[in-house]
Amino acid sequence: MKRPTIADIARRAGVSKGAVSYALNGQPGVSEATRKRILSIAQEIGFSANSAARALSGARAQAIGLTLCRPARILGIEPWFMGLISGFEAELGARSYALTLQVVATPEQEIEVYRRWWGERRIDGVIVTDIREGDVRIPVLQQLQLPAVVIGGPGDTGSIAQIWSDDAGAITEAVRYLVALGHHRIARVSGNADLLHTQNRTKAFEAVCASLGLDHALTIPADYTGEEGSRATRRLLIGGDRPTAIIYDNDVMAVAGLAVAQEMGLSVPGDLSIVAWDDSPLCSLVHPPLTALSRDISAYGAQAARELLAAIDGQKVGNVEAGRVHLTPRGSTAPPRQDL
Amino acid sequence: MKRPTIADIARRAGVSKGAVSYALNGQPGVSEATRKRILSIAQEIGFSANSAARALSGARAQAIGLTLCRPARILGIEPWFMGLISGFEAELGARSYALTLQVVATPEQEIEVYRRWWGERRIDGVIVTDIREGDVRIPVLQQLQLPAVVIGGPGDTGSIAQIWSDDAGAITEAVRYLVALGHHRIARVSGNADLLHTQNRTKAFEAVCASLGLDHALTIPADYTGEEGSRATRRLLIGGDRPTAIIYDNDVMAVAGLAVAQEMGLSVPGDLSIVAWDDSPLCSLVHPPLTALSRDISAYGAQAARELLAAIDGQKVGNVEAGRVHLTPRGSTAPPRQDL
Repeated sequence: MKRPTIADIARRAGVSKGAVSYALNGQPGVSEATRKRILSIAQEIGFSANSAARALSGARAQAIGLTLCRPARILGIEPWFMGLISGFEAELGARSYALTLQVVATPEQEIEVYRRWWGERRIDGVIVTDIREGDVRIPVLQQLQLPAVVIGGPGDTGSIAQIWSDDAGAITEAVRYLVALGHHRIARVSGNADLLHTQNRTKAFEAVCASLGLDHALTIPADYTGEEGSRATRRLLIGGDRPTAIIYDNDVMAVAGLAVAQEMGLSVPGDLSIVAWDDSPLCSLVHPPLTALSRDISAYGAQAARELLAAIDGQKVGNVEAGRVHLTPRGSTAPPRQDL
Repeated sequence: MKRPTIADIARRAGVSKGAVSYALNGQPGVSEATRKRILSIAQEIGFSANSAARALSGARAQAIGLTLCRPARILGIEPWFMGLISGFEAELGARSYALTLQVVATPEQEIEVYRRWWGERRIDGVIVTDIREGDVRIPVLQQLQLPAVVIGGPGDTGSIAQIWSDDAGAITEAVRYLVALGHHRIARVSGNADLLHTQNRTKAFEAVCASLGLDHALTIPADYTGEEGSRATRRLLIGGDRPTAIIYDNDVMAVAGLAVAQEMGLSVPGDLSIVAWDDSPLCSLVHPPLTALSRDISAYGAQAARELLAAIDGQKVGNVEAGRVHLTPRGSTAPPRQDL
């Protein structure tokens, strides 16, 4: 017994799959008569009976959706998503909202998940992460009129509310701190270069280094994984004019960088200072514990969930900058050795 | 506008909240006439209209539930749950099932979540982890007749199917390997002592050590967090007759143990060999990379999801042992120094 699909409904109703999707979504694009006919066929052939019922009744799903778009090898150890999730829970629990989760491989697959979730009325809104320049998800979310909050900009998200943290302020503080310790050759290993907040960080890093007269402000792009973090660190440390301090765009790459320094016989912080961003329990797990740029990721998640619930309730939601990022000095940073 | 609650329905129907819950669940305990009256009141006052509709229609939620019961500080960095989740996805995606997630603090809170999920027809079944002796969740799951699969035994789960991995075989292999390298003083830092699989591991550890004539088979109970892993490691390493090898029940505690050894000026593996269990990308992130007991957690999750989907389909599901665990030797194990 094959489960009925949207294609089955489309065939019976003599319309396109897109029209079926519009009808199930309650979106414009089909006439009211067609919509009713499509929904009745959906119910007749037992297509997600409860989804069709939801679509008919206009009732809420009482759930919000989150997709996880990371390679499997990084998903498990990067604390970011779990921090965000525990923040969501604080808000959702109180409102009896559930969290629906799906792992995706690409933004295109993510769009398909949004369409299906919304079409089947599985969720009332989504939290969107990893925003890029010209992000392909934004026009689709707007077209679907799916309530959404975007994390990690700021960028051009049209009518969709966004929430971001002060990346420029954070990296400026980290660089000033390292310069105050006596460092002049500071490098950075970044996250994926196509992400908006990576670009914002890179611009701010270059600006503060230029303003302080540092010539060696090199950013090596990586992808948040330990493997890439290791590779970038080796590239930096085997060079002739190696940096005395490296700032990493996440905790996983910073821990990998520490391991590379140890493997090369360099002492941290004697030969190399390390700053991780974001701070997480992982940073305190290693020896020496890593100096990090800390922000309350759970509070960030809670704020995003509040914004999304407000948007679902039909309230006008604006763009907000989340709570401050601050530097937490630990054992991985110190003045550079005199001879370096 | 306050959202209608079960209490509102109970008051209107002149029944207990429990009776409302039974009615919404379609469980025995209320007459068919009362059930219909309760559901109609629920619909009338707009109580989770779609949930009531689901209960009326008998349609499936097309979702399975997973609760995460870990302190927030460990949740983000322990790869176990995310590994499990990516395994679930492989099975659920193909069947258009969603995964619904909730963070809980205690087994009691977890039970409340199961009651609510099942009552509101948000899920069709649950995956239950962290099974304990005399687990309070088992009788409730049986009473609710909520399809479930238990991970991490084997134990007494009554009619509920379970899936576990060969803990005894794994720890026996690890101890034999360390003894083959020349170690005689082997200790273990365990996970929570009330978990069934921890108890199974402890018994097997003591048995293999006894059979090999090792006197120092000490297990120090901890709780999977880096903090407890560090404390247990310090306790072991400041003792007079310190172990030359330590086996940790998870990767996070093993990484914390490595940091403690480094902080105390001990070289790994020269002065101390370390074995982590389970293997994860975290184990390869540090220097030296950690020897670990590897199993395919994602495949384990996929198998659990398959079992659960079969149970939801009304098939009889038996107990199964999951794929083998094997030792992956890396840089953290070596023969002990001659003078130790």
